[in-house]
Amino acid sequence: MGSLDRADSARMFRRAIRRMTAYVPGEQPRPGQRLIKLNTNENPYPPSPAVRRVLAGAAGLLRLYPAPLADELIVEAARLYRLPREMIVAGNGSDELLAMIFRVTLGARDRVAYPLPTYSLYDTLAAIQEATVIGVPWRENFVLPLDELVRARARLTIVCNPNSPSGTCVAAAKLAALARRLAPRLLVIDEAYVDFADGHALELVRRYRNVVVLRSFSKSFSLAGMRLGLGFAHPEIIQQLLKVKDSYNLSRLAIAVGARALRDVAWMRRNVERIKTMRARVEAELRRMGFEVPPSRANFVMARLPGRDLGPLAAGLRKRGILVRYFATPELKDALRISIGTPAEMAALMRALRPLMATPGVATASRRRPAAPAR
Amino acid sequence: MGSLDRADSARMFRRAIRRMTAYVPGEQPRPGQRLIKLNTNENPYPPSPAVRRVLAGAAGLLRLYPAPLADELIVEAARLYRLPREMIVAGNGSDELLAMIFRVTLGARDRVAYPLPTYSLYDTLAAIQEATVIGVPWRENFVLPLDELVRARARLTIVCNPNSPSGTCVAAAKLAALARRLAPRLLVIDEAYVDFADGHALELVRRYRNVVVLRSFSKSFSLAGMRLGLGFAHPEIIQQLLKVKDSYNLSRLAIAVGARALRDVAWMRRNVERIKTMRARVEAELRRMGFEVPPSRANFVMARLPGRDLGPLAAGLRKRGILVRYFATPELKDALRISIGTPAEMAALMRALRPLMATPGVATASRRRPAAPAR
Repeated sequence: MGSLDRADSARMFRRAIRRMTAYVPGEQPRPGQRLIKLNTNENPYPPSPAVRRVLAGAAGLLRLYPAPLADELIVEAARLYRLPREMIVAGNGSDELLAMIFRVTLGARDRVAYPLPTYSLYDTLAAIQEATVIGVPWRENFVLPLDELVRARARLTIVCNPNSPSGTCVAAAKLAALARRLAPRLLVIDEAYVDFADGHALELVRRYRNVVVLRSFSKSFSLAGMRLGLGFAHPEIIQQLLKVKDSYNLSRLAIAVGARALRDVAWMRRNVERIKTMRARVEAELRRMGFEVPPSRANFVMARLPGRDLGPLAAGLRKRGILVRYFATPELKDALRISIGTPAEMAALMRALRPLMATPGVATASRRRPAAPAR
Repeated sequence: MGSLDRADSARMFRRAIRRMTAYVPGEQPRPGQRLIKLNTNENPYPPSPAVRRVLAGAAGLLRLYPAPLADELIVEAARLYRLPREMIVAGNGSDELLAMIFRVTLGARDRVAYPLPTYSLYDTLAAIQEATVIGVPWRENFVLPLDELVRARARLTIVCNPNSPSGTCVAAAKLAALARRLAPRLLVIDEAYVDFADGHALELVRRYRNVVVLRSFSKSFSLAGMRLGLGFAHPEIIQQLLKVKDSYNLSRLAIAVGARALRDVAWMRRNVERIKTMRARVEAELRRMGFEVPPSRANFVMARLPGRDLGPLAAGLRKRGILVRYFATPELKDALRISIGTPAEMAALMRALRPLMATPGVATASRRRPAAPAR
């Protein structure tokens, strides 16, 4: 089958789509590949055992459509997070909620602002909407560039908090100040990793009508494979988001599993504690090995050798069966993002890292600037 | 919490979004409601028993992200439908694939054409893209308005085949002619119901570079609750669609269940035969009762009393615990869309219909014109 010529393609597709490249998620190994997977910030521990039991029941009704608004899940979220149901929307992962937010807010040439480097999916979603990205570099030590974000006057501002790939966290009070100064423009606080931090900004959706908080089940709840996310905001914001939601965006299984996971939040918290303990050890070990590691409040750490290219190091680990995230961009070449795994997985990582660090050629000289990672 | 004022809302949301209304799916009963559900074209028979067994295995890896391209499912689809993998994309329901197609093809004021009445989600997706809808009425007896669709010169043309809510089907040869005359403009053939018809148009994606065929697991495979759909097209069309796909749009469970269901296509075909047998009986009975029923090639029938308003009849059935689809639009008030259920469900429907038909007031006079249904 021949290829489409340029004229045909122009007749079929929007110019913005033809010119953009797709978002590239981290490598997902094929079944049967035996790898230590520390590249996409999954949880090394299984989800609540109750999740497996609930699946058997939910499977019985697969022939019927799910509830369009995922009621059972929303009820549990309202209970756990103490917010009214009208302030909550469920997504097929928080990625879907991000896409919905971009879709309702941004037309061609509208501005969207966020500190860089951050989750690079934002760039992809902006390209789909033909929006203009105002990327504002984080200040030294990943301090929030508050004034610059306000001055950008963007229709949509996003702060990933804790941020990926730095793992660093901004205090809720700073986000509150940002929300006040941006109002009525929207501020999205992407809290995919917040269960691993010491605080959160969920209460801001009560205080500010222009704040949306996003949560994910992929990290703390060990449910990356189930695709579940939650969005919290003023009821009228939720109403607008629902207009662009796929009618039945969550399967019956996702709704049942999500609701059950929220009822067993103790399981999640226990795993989070184990991961936080391990995170402290990994940070200390990596620093001893010479890496710069910003203090992480997420389930991963960023390990940096300023000015080096860590591509060869990532490739060396890959050869030894360990996946970590390497961002091939000029700004992030000198960093690896390493998910926190089990104690055994982290021990294997350290055993593999030490000889590699001593190998000539794992660290090619390069320049640095901030930019583009992924979940 | 007060409401957003108009100026705030204008700052937050695109004008097109503020002005549009959401798509309204058919009523989905709450758990515990005992209703005979014939309103959203689900399958009355369960999915393959193999599906339930596969869930137990898939649940074990929920902590890990799924394969972004749903490889296991695509491999099975390539085998069953005898097309290369590069010509297939998997969606979170065919609704998601429709949304992706609108997103890659239509900018503000671009034209999208389809015969009316048809699946009303197309209108919602057009509104999100700010596209202009060219609705072309079906000819008498739901004959394809081929010349008018060609003359519309729309960037995107869609034919739902079999069509909802009419249940009628257009021959593949006619769709081939349409594809030829529209080229290089895109023609989407939405075959959500095609397993209940006598033929299909899948081979057109080999012959025409501008054709996309969509399939759903919700009807014939009894998996509406799982959210699974497939799209087939030229590899370069698939590439553009992937750019706007959520990175992990299908859960691990959906991928495993979909792949397993495709391996047990015999189960699906047996249920389809049962439904087709029942469909013939229901059509004949409804005609005897005085309804106009176009010959259905889907898993539902459209029952019409021209000029009447069947709202009271639908309400009467609802009161007796039977859900059917009534479209409150002026054009379709005189029609009910009734999914084909089990023999017992259809017997209950007929028992409820007969006395209602004799009740004064179930059929208020009204005018007719074609328009807007749903899945």
